[in-house]
Amino acid sequence: MLTLDMIWDAQAALRGVARRTPLENAPKIGENLYIKAENLQLTGAFKLRGAYNKMRSLSPEEAARGVIACSAGNHAQGIALSAAKLGIRSVICMPAGAPISKVEATRGYGAEVVLVPGVYDDTAREAARLAQEHGYTFAHPFDDPAVIAGQGTIGLEILEQLPDAEQIVCPIGGGGLISGIAFAVKALKPSCRIIGVQAAAVDSMAQSLAAGHIVTVPDRDTIADGIHVLTPGSLTFELCRQYVDEVVTVTEDEICAAILTLMESQKTVAEGAGATGVAACMFGKVDISRKKTVCVVSGGNVDVTTLSRVITKGLVKSGRIVDLATRVVDKPGSLIGLLQIVSQTGANIVSIRHAREDERTDVATCTVSMVLETRDQEHVACIRDALQSKGYPLLR
Amino acid sequence: MLTLDMIWDAQAALRGVARRTPLENAPKIGENLYIKAENLQLTGAFKLRGAYNKMRSLSPEEAARGVIACSAGNHAQGIALSAAKLGIRSVICMPAGAPISKVEATRGYGAEVVLVPGVYDDTAREAARLAQEHGYTFAHPFDDPAVIAGQGTIGLEILEQLPDAEQIVCPIGGGGLISGIAFAVKALKPSCRIIGVQAAAVDSMAQSLAAGHIVTVPDRDTIADGIHVLTPGSLTFELCRQYVDEVVTVTEDEICAAILTLMESQKTVAEGAGATGVAACMFGKVDISRKKTVCVVSGGNVDVTTLSRVITKGLVKSGRIVDLATRVVDKPGSLIGLLQIVSQTGANIVSIRHAREDERTDVATCTVSMVLETRDQEHVACIRDALQSKGYPLLR
Repeated sequence: MLTLDMIWDAQAALRGVARRTPLENAPKIGENLYIKAENLQLTGAFKLRGAYNKMRSLSPEEAARGVIACSAGNHAQGIALSAAKLGIRSVICMPAGAPISKVEATRGYGAEVVLVPGVYDDTAREAARLAQEHGYTFAHPFDDPAVIAGQGTIGLEILEQLPDAEQIVCPIGGGGLISGIAFAVKALKPSCRIIGVQAAAVDSMAQSLAAGHIVTVPDRDTIADGIHVLTPGSLTFELCRQYVDEVVTVTEDEICAAILTLMESQKTVAEGAGATGVAACMFGKVDISRKKTVCVVSGGNVDVTTLSRVITKGLVKSGRIVDLATRVVDKPGSLIGLLQIVSQTGANIVSIRHAREDERTDVATCTVSMVLETRDQEHVACIRDALQSKGYPLLR
Repeated sequence: MLTLDMIWDAQAALRGVARRTPLENAPKIGENLYIKAENLQLTGAFKLRGAYNKMRSLSPEEAARGVIACSAGNHAQGIALSAAKLGIRSVICMPAGAPISKVEATRGYGAEVVLVPGVYDDTAREAARLAQEHGYTFAHPFDDPAVIAGQGTIGLEILEQLPDAEQIVCPIGGGGLISGIAFAVKALKPSCRIIGVQAAAVDSMAQSLAAGHIVTVPDRDTIADGIHVLTPGSLTFELCRQYVDEVVTVTEDEICAAILTLMESQKTVAEGAGATGVAACMFGKVDISRKKTVCVVSGGNVDVTTLSRVITKGLVKSGRIVDLATRVVDKPGSLIGLLQIVSQTGANIVSIRHAREDERTDVATCTVSMVLETRDQEHVACIRDALQSKGYPLLR
């Protein structure tokens, strides 16, 4: 059972272990919008709070045997760092295909990493087997009162840092983060609304709450790997049912745009899951026009290769780059004519490819593919019109 | 003439206008290393401080006529926002090829932007002409005591936030930022070392100090566009000569690696110029092992398309991705054999290209280009060895 005292107690225990992360106004995103920056938490995500609070509550015998967890992400790092701080042995099972950067980061905090071939379920089975064999305590990523109490300390901090917060927007995966925050905040300030956000591709808590019972959703890809949970916890489901006012969903494109906006306006790096709250505020899923709103940016551990793809996607979505292809006659000087039109529209050329061998072109013409830097969607439409009106067909 | 009183006075005037930016420990980069996050300043760079301090000191007549500046970057935004806050008209001349995002940002703060064809010198000439014609006051980006006093407030803040700072590392372009900081800090704590950093490609202040007189360096490309200044100011040159202990330089690759490290370890976005101090600390240009060191991260306004390229470059440099090409026999199944070797080394495939038409291959073979995700340079060497020992030639 979760109590407010457990959360106060966790707050005291986390002093000097977890960071009291900053709460920053984000006026370029919304005048009344504030970011609770758990991406600046040690290990790069909020998970450290719950993991440490769980592990400090182990009995001396349990602590002596060690803990095991199963995660390719932030939970793994939270457990690893907590274990190191408490002098407890930690073993983390990860799927063999996990990004190398995550494996290295987890090892860097001192955990033993076991790479398990197969999918997540195989990893979980192997973790259970090892726990059985060696007597390790299994550290659940979310469905545990001690873990939830740890995450709840974020709710206490928000009310201390911005006592007149009227609305808190928070990502939901398994539901541990929002359960803790909602429980703490509703106990201290019941008028403050709590809104959960899920990736539309994996909206297990939203569906479960709508159905009135726990639902498992099909496995689909999402950039928000930190909240990629197909079945909510039973404890977190009950807590969300009781304390969360509303759950909304955001698309993959919206998440990418939010990551980009956080980088450009706030100069801060959020991972997919971490940016979902901001995405919900940016794209009208949550009304931020009247209420003082806090968005929990839950983590910042995004693979930089992913980030590079996200940037491109976000730029395309907002009309800041466009990828066009057209045809020109295969003779000297014909590319110049095309480029003059592009230049007159004020677009900058990022890259250009002029190719003869393309199944879409006949022998007398060439395909020209261009990536252009543009101002916005309106500017893109202008360029398209200019090309077509001068007789250049748009191949895409 | 610059005085400490002018800097105190600027600090008072900037209250409520510029942000007191956070000073954060960066233990993953260096145990004793702290970041002064001017990338989190309003407008995304420190320039606001100097620009506002200059503009508030205009006479009512000057203010009524307006100001003009010449910049494609942070100075432009600093002037534009300061002008808006003070109700003064501002005109910014920019080279016509300036990134669209910078033009839009400057307009967004309410400035009038004049796009001037040609290079920087043409822009400066046009600004001078317009100033003459309309009676605008020309706002110099660095060589002005009021501007330098504004930047000097960063020095006061550093000593307030970390009184036992022993060393401050600071980017140098024209020299306004470091002149202000060095003047303030040497007045209050002479034992604190001040180290300037320039891009090796454009090291005008370093060369000038070494020569004992102002030197103009040839124009070369650098990712650190914010410190791309070919000739130091005369006032800033004198101040650097008097108050700066040492000037070091960093390469383009080092700057890219520092941007990446700031994103991964600190979850913060720095522009090229802003990351030079961190680059100097990371690559042994400054000894941070014994002294409590503050790195001024001067700005965060990096074009996201640039960022995407920087990420790739940084990953390659640190051996986290590698781009390889080899040859396979052109028959069914031959690609599988190659991929099995790659898979056994534990590298993840990012992209792969299998092509027949390549001048390097004879008719019976195909070229395979692969981008692989790897752990580090040692891992890359392993993969290269494995491929060669199995008879796959490395084409690059």
